[in-house]
Order: sequence, then C-alpha cells, then structure tokens
Amino acid sequence: MKVIHDLNEIYTQIDFVRRDARRIGVVPTMGALHNGHLSLVQRAKQECDVAVATIFVNPTQFGPNEDLAKYPRTLESDLEGLRQLGCDFVFVPPSDRVYRANHSTFVEPPLVGKRWEGELRPGHFRGVTTIVLKLFQLIPAHVAYFGRKDYQQVAVIRAMVDDLNIPIRIEACATVREPDGLAMSSRNRYLSTEDRGRALGLWLALTKAQNCLMAGDTTCESLERGMRDELAKAPVDSIDYAAIVDPVTMEPMRQVDETAVAIIAARVGSTRLIDNMTLVANEK
Amino acid sequence: MKVIHDLNEIYTQIDFVRRDARRIGVVPTMGALHNGHLSLVQRAKQECDVAVATIFVNPTQFGPNEDLAKYPRTLESDLEGLRQLGCDFVFVPPSDRVYRANHSTFVEPPLVGKRWEGELRPGHFRGVTTIVLKLFQLIPAHVAYFGRKDYQQVAVIRAMVDDLNIPIRIEACATVREPDGLAMSSRNRYLSTEDRGRALGLWLALTKAQNCLMAGDTTCESLERGMRDELAKAPVDSIDYAAIVDPVTMEPMRQVDETAVAIIAARVGSTRLIDNMTLVANEK
Repeated sequence: MKVIHDLNEIYTQIDFVRRDARRIGVVPTMGALHNGHLSLVQRAKQECDVAVATIFVNPTQFGPNEDLAKYPRTLESDLEGLRQLGCDFVFVPPSDRVYRANHSTFVEPPLVGKRWEGELRPGHFRGVTTIVLKLFQLIPAHVAYFGRKDYQQVAVIRAMVDDLNIPIRIEACATVREPDGLAMSSRNRYLSTEDRGRALGLWLALTKAQNCLMAGDTTCESLERGMRDELAKAPVDSIDYAAIVDPVTMEPMRQVDETAVAIIAARVGSTRLIDNMTLVANEK
Repeated sequence: MKVIHDLNEIYTQIDFVRRDARRIGVVPTMGALHNGHLSLVQRAKQECDVAVATIFVNPTQFGPNEDLAKYPRTLESDLEGLRQLGCDFVFVPPSDRVYRANHSTFVEPPLVGKRWEGELRPGHFRGVTTIVLKLFQLIPAHVAYFGRKDYQQVAVIRAMVDDLNIPIRIEACATVREPDGLAMSSRNRYLSTEDRGRALGLWLALTKAQNCLMAGDTTCESLERGMRDELAKAPVDSIDYAAIVDPVTMEPMRQVDETAVAIIAARVGSTRLIDNMTLVANEK
C-alpha cells in the first residue's frame, strides 16, 4: 500500500495507472475509519483493479461552531485497517497543502443540497462539493464510493457530477450498522454509554416509519409523527428534522406511493447524529 | 477533422487519445472565429499532438440585457477555418444538451473576478468558470489556450484551475490585432464604419499609457488620466473603466514599479469593447 502525501504525486501515480487502462475506485474519507468506510474500500477492491482511499479532515465543510478541532484523528489505525483490506493507495495530504493561501474558488452546491443539512449547516455542502471536486481532479478515478448514511451528501455529489460533467460514476453503498441497528459513524465515539443507548432512537424511529408504511399508513404527516414519538421515547435531546422526502429531489412529500426516504438528524448529548432509510410501500 | 456533437462521444474520443499518451491541446470558443481564435488553434497544433476546438455560445455567461440572442453564429466558416489549420476535433454540442434541465451547480469564481468585468457584468464569470470547468471535464486535455485580450477571464480561469486542482495547464496567448492596432473580437463585426474608426481609441489609450510610463510617469492616477483623455478624443461613447492594475491580483495600483496591466472597457455605439496591455517600466 502506497501512502502518498504530495498532491502532484498522487495525480501522477493515478494518471499512470489510468493509462494502463486499469479501473480505479476512490473512497474519499475524513479518516477515523469504521467498518462503514472499510466496506466502501472492500467494494472498490471487488469492482476495480486499483483502490484509492483519501484521508483529509476538510475544514471548509465545518461551520464555525462545529467540531473541526476535535474531530477524531486516528491515522495509524486507519492505515492499518486499509492495509489489511489490500487498499492500493492512500492519499493523506498535509492539511495546509490542500487549499492554497489565496484559495477563493468554490463549488456552489446544487438545489438538492438546499434543505435539511444545507439549511442547518450553512456552507457545509459548499465545502463538501468543493473538496470532492478537488479530489476528483487530483485522483482521476472511474468510480467513487460513498456511504448512503450521508444520503443528502450523496445526492448533492451525484447532482454535481451530472451538472459539471465530471467523468466519474458515483456509487452509494449500504449503511453499515451496529448489531442493534445504530448506523456506524466516526462521531459515535463521542457518545457516553448512556448517550449510546439513547442514540438508538434514530434507528427505532426509522424502522417504525417503515413498519407503519407496510401496515398501510402512507400519509407522511402521520409517518413523521410516528418518528418523532419514537425519538421522544429514546429520548434524544433535540430533533433537527425527521422527515419523509422524495428520494431524488429530497423535497418533502405528502403521501408515499412507491418509495420515499425517511431522514433524521437529532442531537444526543452534544453529539449530532444523522441517519436515513429508504421506505418501500406495499404493492397495491 | 472530426466534428463531434455528443457529450459522451467527445469524452470517449479524447480519453482514448489520452491513453495513447498523446498530448492534447484545447481551445474553448464561442464561435464567430477570427484570427485571434485561429492563432490559438495554431499554437495548439504546434505544441500538442492533437488540437481540439470547442464552439458553444454559453448562455450562463450572458446577462439578461446582453447580446446572447444576437451573438454572431458563423458555424460553416468557423469549421472551414479550423479545417484549414488541421484542427483534429471540433466539439459543437447542441445548445440544449450542455446544461441539464435541472442544472443547479455553479462554480463560484475566484476573487480576481470580483472587480471590473465581475462588477459590471454580474454573473458573467460564474457562467465562464462553470462552462470552462465543464469543458475541462468533457475534454481531458493537457493544455488549454485562451486569448490574452480577455485578460481578467484568463486570470479567473487560472485561479480556478489552481484552486480546484484541475490537471490542465492554462496558456494565455498574445492578442491578435488589426493592422492599425484594434484587438480582434467577434463583436467587432457589430461596428459601423464610423464606430470602427472610434473603436481605435482603446488601442491609442493603451499605447499612450505605455509611452507615458516609458517617459518616466509611473503614477497610476496620471497614466489613467492619459488613457481617459485619449478615449475622450476618439471619442468613445462611454467608459466602463480605464485602470492600471496588478497583473496577478488585478487590484488597482498607485505606482508602477516594474510591470502592470492597463485595462479598458468602453462602449462605441452599442458595442462594448475591452482591451488591455501589459506595461513595463524603464529599468532604473
């Protein structure tokens, strides 16, 4: 496994692999890798000839009051995990090299990033689209793998790639969960034992929405009420949103005809967690 | 010469050339080609193995009161000129295929695009950065050639490429001029015979600034006054700006120590013209 720090070198190496007509898969991460990230790398290994992971805690996607400074950094064990999976390249740029001193060009994110995370974390998606576009230029891969846990992020990146004709395919991979259902997240390590119990509320609320839908309740207002009840039971400390949305536009829906996505953001202790589930209605 | 209309096809063909390790040069244009454009294609032919020109009148860089609808379209003679130079590929996308129906991702241009054209043509550079980035994704070339006549545009594109790590080199090529000094421009064809005479005022003002600087006048205020006098003599109908700026940041300067750029935008009849000249002070 080659660990590369230099921006020119990663481009040169991957471009070289590309000329060989070998298929390249990239997994952009902020490190603090858990099994969710590792499943993306495994997928890249299965589907491509060469797997590249990137580790960079991107400052432009954190708000001024967010957890940039204390975001977990676990480089040694990250590299160990990647090595065990046979990851071919890891790009770990020095934090001061990714943005030039006078950096001022940003990617204004697509409409699908407007609500939900976009509203609650102003500037977040602008940071995400900008860094992802930069990584896609530095690492000319054929496929990029992202976790479906960040559902809106994947939708934003997909729309960006389509709008800007970026020659890469985006693959959204299933959320990896703890045995009890909690979605894996680098931020889970912030949770105290007591928080950890309450954090399960997100999963319980999502499965409740799916169960109610299967039982014939197709009204979003009622499904959302069910989710909020479940979150209150956990209890979580606050709910940013708990909504049923269109899987493509992420606009709120009134009625589920075929599919929808249930999305939740809630705070447990001082930790903000998000999760989602694709809902499928019973055939009529 | 291959004329390609389809977005997937241009990418596939150019990516194929690239795998052959052949060097690719691209010249993005809006058509209505004059000798300035053709000199860029010639340069691409000289320096690269394969030259690609693009012809697309990009709607997102025109303001609501600008000349999008009446922008000159001369496809047949454009193609003839390119064929004569031995251009290898011409990409002429159908106007409704470049932006998807729900296109909403834009490139927010760098700071160097804030003043001058950026101020007078709100949204112009956002349209430019967005289309140029899209073309750079569709056509993975090694070098892109732009005319120095659009000085600020080149500065904006250069900063974007650096900020976003786009793997392409930007070459700014000398402005091609009519025998009397008027910079070639697709918009010159709008000028009546009488306008055409007055349009020379831009060139006269620029050369006056250079002459005054050579004569020892290094104060920008005074150099700018000289340019305005010359423009008033032409006379042009209005002056958008006539300024001496830093060649990199394009911020106004007070004093020319070594080099600077004189930039002018002025209206002659209903035609808006721009021009510029790099000024060099006498060695001390």
